[in-house]
Amino acid sequence: MRRFKCTIQYDGTDYSGYQVQPNGLTIQEVIEKTLERMHKHPVKIIGSGRTDARVHAQGQVIHFNTELSIAPASMVKALNTLLPDDIRIRDCKEVASDFEARYDVVGKEYRYFVRQTEDAFRRHQSVLIPYSLDVAQIRLGLAYLVGTHDFSSFCVAKTETDNRVRTIYEAELIEQGEELIFRFHGSGFLYNQIRIMVGTLLDVGRGRFAPEDIKRMLEAKDRNVAGVTAPPHGLYLWEVFYPESKKGI
Amino acid sequence: MRRFKCTIQYDGTDYSGYQVQPNGLTIQEVIEKTLERMHKHPVKIIGSGRTDARVHAQGQVIHFNTELSIAPASMVKALNTLLPDDIRIRDCKEVASDFEARYDVVGKEYRYFVRQTEDAFRRHQSVLIPYSLDVAQIRLGLAYLVGTHDFSSFCVAKTETDNRVRTIYEAELIEQGEELIFRFHGSGFLYNQIRIMVGTLLDVGRGRFAPEDIKRMLEAKDRNVAGVTAPPHGLYLWEVFYPESKKGI
Repeated sequence: MRRFKCTIQYDGTDYSGYQVQPNGLTIQEVIEKTLERMHKHPVKIIGSGRTDARVHAQGQVIHFNTELSIAPASMVKALNTLLPDDIRIRDCKEVASDFEARYDVVGKEYRYFVRQTEDAFRRHQSVLIPYSLDVAQIRLGLAYLVGTHDFSSFCVAKTETDNRVRTIYEAELIEQGEELIFRFHGSGFLYNQIRIMVGTLLDVGRGRFAPEDIKRMLEAKDRNVAGVTAPPHGLYLWEVFYPESKKGI
Repeated sequence: MRRFKCTIQYDGTDYSGYQVQPNGLTIQEVIEKTLERMHKHPVKIIGSGRTDARVHAQGQVIHFNTELSIAPASMVKALNTLLPDDIRIRDCKEVASDFEARYDVVGKEYRYFVRQTEDAFRRHQSVLIPYSLDVAQIRLGLAYLVGTHDFSSFCVAKTETDNRVRTIYEAELIEQGEELIFRFHGSGFLYNQIRIMVGTLLDVGRGRFAPEDIKRMLEAKDRNVAGVTAPPHGLYLWEVFYPESKKGI
């Protein structure tokens, strides 16, 4: 039995999120059904974490076990032939049998795309912001989020975890053509954390909050003080980081 | 009565092409129904030309008459509010009452996008070419198409026109990130001409034809000697050109 680690790209538009659930088609379900076709028996996959309905991934990571004598490059080709074209396998590696796509995560990068102009081709891939944004003010606000903080104000109030302390290593706003990209690299993120941070920063950009209000919000540890949750379709799980020692066989 | 000229962007994925037809939803039909809602009576639009099912536009041009006392900028906002988000109005101008979106065309630019890597987000917007391409050979072939030629070998055999002579002013291959873009600027193009030229040039890129075969194909004036018709979803009507004298009021 060998263990494979795959890096997956998906357009989340037509899915009810990553994780299997009773209502609606999910990314996990489609990949597991495809692996079942190849293996002639059910194959369970473990992902680095969930993504919500309509959220995308450039680099979601999964692992699974296989008894097939197939090279990783052939696994990529076989899966891409069988999967629908809104889910693509970008890379596959054989890893040690103790590699865990979920528990070994040491960091994640998310990006959130917004645009200020109408664009038929980006309608499911970035969020249209029809009001003008003060990019310099957003950058000032963004700086307050970097570091180790209790992010209770920036996650769903009912988040099932006692520890809401997380570390954001880097946060930046990238101007790329007609779009603005929020990039966050951190130890891990709470439920809806990126979308609430972005929703709040967009309010900073239109002058509803001052940049230094972000500091006050962090201190309040109360979801009610932060801004709205930005829509799902601007969000991408961009990259998942693992320790060097887990780089593969 | 005033005449408006609008520049339209559309993602052609979910449409049966530009022009109204009995089977399947078309771009023209959706825009006309939207204008009818605004005007409380049917409004006919005239486009610069047709695009096929799944073909896109960055800059299709239409005209129509209106008795509404509405500024062009307000027309853009009103239409974008009412239209589905895969059809966007980019610009609207009032023009002289003799402006004709179809008959006044003096040139068109089309672009055709291909990529060599899997990409879930570009699946409907560019064509995946899974074999390697010799870009230098394609550029040599492309050069033969520039100029005034009889393009009978590069259009649908049953094309209903006696005159198959057209002029290509510029043709180039642009390398942009992971994608290759064929750009054609010409006086006008025959039915399926861009897709047949691209299909043939891709065969040059993989070594099935030599670049100088393009010259031989033009001389043959026979659709059977050229390559396959490339798929529709890589094609974009990029820009439509009108005389300076028709620039608007």
